[in-house]
Amino acid sequence: MLPPADGDPGRLVEAMRYSLLAPGKRIRPLLGMAAAETVGPLDDDVRLACASVELIHCYSLIHDDLPAMDDDDFRRGRPSNHKAFGEATAILAGDALLTLAFDWIAEAGERAGHPGRYLRAARALAQGAGVRGMVRGQARDLGAPPPTTLEALEVLHGEKTAALFEASLRVGALAAGAAPEAVAALARYGTAYGIAFQHADDRDDAEHAEHAGAARARLGTLIDQACATVAPFGAAGARLVEFARALLR
Amino acid sequence: MLPPADGDPGRLVEAMRYSLLAPGKRIRPLLGMAAAETVGPLDDDVRLACASVELIHCYSLIHDDLPAMDDDDFRRGRPSNHKAFGEATAILAGDALLTLAFDWIAEAGERAGHPGRYLRAARALAQGAGVRGMVRGQARDLGAPPPTTLEALEVLHGEKTAALFEASLRVGALAAGAAPEAVAALARYGTAYGIAFQHADDRDDAEHAEHAGAARARLGTLIDQACATVAPFGAAGARLVEFARALLR
Repeated sequence: MLPPADGDPGRLVEAMRYSLLAPGKRIRPLLGMAAAETVGPLDDDVRLACASVELIHCYSLIHDDLPAMDDDDFRRGRPSNHKAFGEATAILAGDALLTLAFDWIAEAGERAGHPGRYLRAARALAQGAGVRGMVRGQARDLGAPPPTTLEALEVLHGEKTAALFEASLRVGALAAGAAPEAVAALARYGTAYGIAFQHADDRDDAEHAEHAGAARARLGTLIDQACATVAPFGAAGARLVEFARALLR
Repeated sequence: MLPPADGDPGRLVEAMRYSLLAPGKRIRPLLGMAAAETVGPLDDDVRLACASVELIHCYSLIHDDLPAMDDDDFRRGRPSNHKAFGEATAILAGDALLTLAFDWIAEAGERAGHPGRYLRAARALAQGAGVRGMVRGQARDLGAPPPTTLEALEVLHGEKTAALFEASLRVGALAAGAAPEAVAALARYGTAYGIAFQHADDRDDAEHAEHAGAARARLGTLIDQACATVAPFGAAGARLVEFARALLR
């Protein structure tokens, strides 16, 4: 689905592959697929739509690491994209991955013969990723003083992290043809999961340590909320319950 | 359609508006709308889909101007986005505009009640803008020596400039419900127009001057090709003929 690496001017495709195929948990597509499984068995079109969320996540890491942003030389123990390929190629690789996400989700929708479902999924992805979601959170984080309250911290986590998790769940649910109420419930799971995910991440990295005690309590509450939200799906929601509970470890 | 500028963390929306609402010819949406008019009267959904191409064009200018790319301090006589808002916000504003393009095109499709048309349009936009089109051209341009032949110059122009023009025409035609053969003809117009546009731009800026003579001849040929491609549309294609002929001036 990525173009072949031969004839790759500016090492663009190589840079895209470098970050996209780096080891990772692929938690966003997995959650999208788990959301789709609450509706019925998975197919390759739904899988492709869910995978598109990983492209968004991957681009955001490349751009986040840039010198003008977080200025990180390493990402998971390997040189960050701009250290390996230079800043210009890293910017373009991020742009290309972001754009490719919408190519994939549209391709999936054309193949599936359910354009309405996938168009709604594409919109959910754009809204979670963009100026109302993830990018807004990144802008909020820029040079701002650390949040002084748990509420302010959760606003930041909500935009920067949870909006894309919510989009993952929406994409999977919409592509699979879930009913509107089911999509809404799965989206609520995504929001709760995303904030809990970030609290767990802060715990593991000892970030925002001044809120550690309150965040630990919230983590448990959010996981309970997430699980309660998908309880009506019964056995079909078991995987989502599992994912949420795993954040406690 | 852009969120209000109040409560704008990191001045993200302000930065988006700064570049998007700067004076410009809006030639890409205008060509998309002209393509749509070969099918029938315009409506607001088709217009919104065509406008999404301007978001892509705008983001590409912001990222192109960054210090790691072309390092331009000015854009049309005003400070470039990163000079006005800082590099980090400029990167994010570009990312947000790129993402918003797919929000708009999906919104238009949902409203229009023709999801299949707009999903195909979204895919055409992603393909013209991304790793197979515009971004590939930008990567090719990075630090490469200037093209030594007119053919190599047109490969660069084809990716960097014409791919997005082709997408403009496809988006307008697909959203309006054009038949596949009409979409193909309009796409060919877009490619010819785009390369001609860049030759005309080089002429006006005295760029790639070593190819100026050959490029001048090709400009005329490409304009003739573009016009011939839309001749079968008769009066409905008159606006496209006008746009192409205007490049001669």
